[in-house]
Amino acid sequence: MTEHSLWRFSRALHRAINERQLDEIDSLIDEDVDWAIYGPIDMFPFLGARHGKAAVIEVIRQIAQNIRVHRFDRESIMLGVDSASSMLRFSLTALGSNKPISLRVAHFAQFKAGRLRSIRVLVDSFDLVEQALGRPIQLPRMSSLA
Amino acid sequence: MTEHSLWRFSRALHRAINERQLDEIDSLIDEDVDWAIYGPIDMFPFLGARHGKAAVIEVIRQIAQNIRVHRFDRESIMLGVDSASSMLRFSLTALGSNKPISLRVAHFAQFKAGRLRSIRVLVDSFDLVEQALGRPIQLPRMSSLA
Repeated sequence: MTEHSLWRFSRALHRAINERQLDEIDSLIDEDVDWAIYGPIDMFPFLGARHGKAAVIEVIRQIAQNIRVHRFDRESIMLGVDSASSMLRFSLTALGSNKPISLRVAHFAQFKAGRLRSIRVLVDSFDLVEQALGRPIQLPRMSSLA
Repeated sequence: MTEHSLWRFSRALHRAINERQLDEIDSLIDEDVDWAIYGPIDMFPFLGARHGKAAVIEVIRQIAQNIRVHRFDRESIMLGVDSASSMLRFSLTALGSNKPISLRVAHFAQFKAGRLRSIRVLVDSFDLVEQALGRPIQLPRMSSLA
């Protein structure tokens, strides 16, 4: 049984971010890739949508300049033949501020011939913003509990 | 082929929220269920973790008092024998303020004998907070793009 594309992609992405080695990830991304990490792009310009391999490699380079990954735990995972989804919890450092950030992330990925064809990533973006700011945002209570 | 547990659960949850009919969903939840919707619980007390069927039925009742679902589109989905994950985009109304909210959601669910055994839900929580407030939150730019 061959290794699922997710594992190879995941290792290469980790290396790209932490060691700024982009060669391996470059070979694992489809030319026509669709990429989206949903979140506040005003605060984090490396979030958002990208299309095509060149744009995705560039955004991975930007992510590598802004965070370091310390560890991640995969809390849930589903694997299909050419697809994968998981929910993970990351421990990161924001390099600009040297702040530790703990972030829950969900992704849905599709592969084609072993290369990433599309990925959509959802993060607990309010939690991310508060940790990056280093302070809580005051919120009103928006609930009518009867 | 029998219908996947996700479809029956999804229909019953929709009915529970929009019509406040809890009988059907009650029969589709395991006594020992683990439930979590990650998000700012100070603002939305019906988010957060719940354990056990009684607590989950109660929180579904609270969600029904606070939102109405207008439509949802499933953008990605993976089905296993007793598991399912999907990414969806919901159009909601917050009933207290009558505000329309468009929200991206990812869930990972496990079923046992056709009943929900565990579910973890991630939402684009910053986007949710801004829409519920009805105004943008000013954020600094936290990026060192080189």
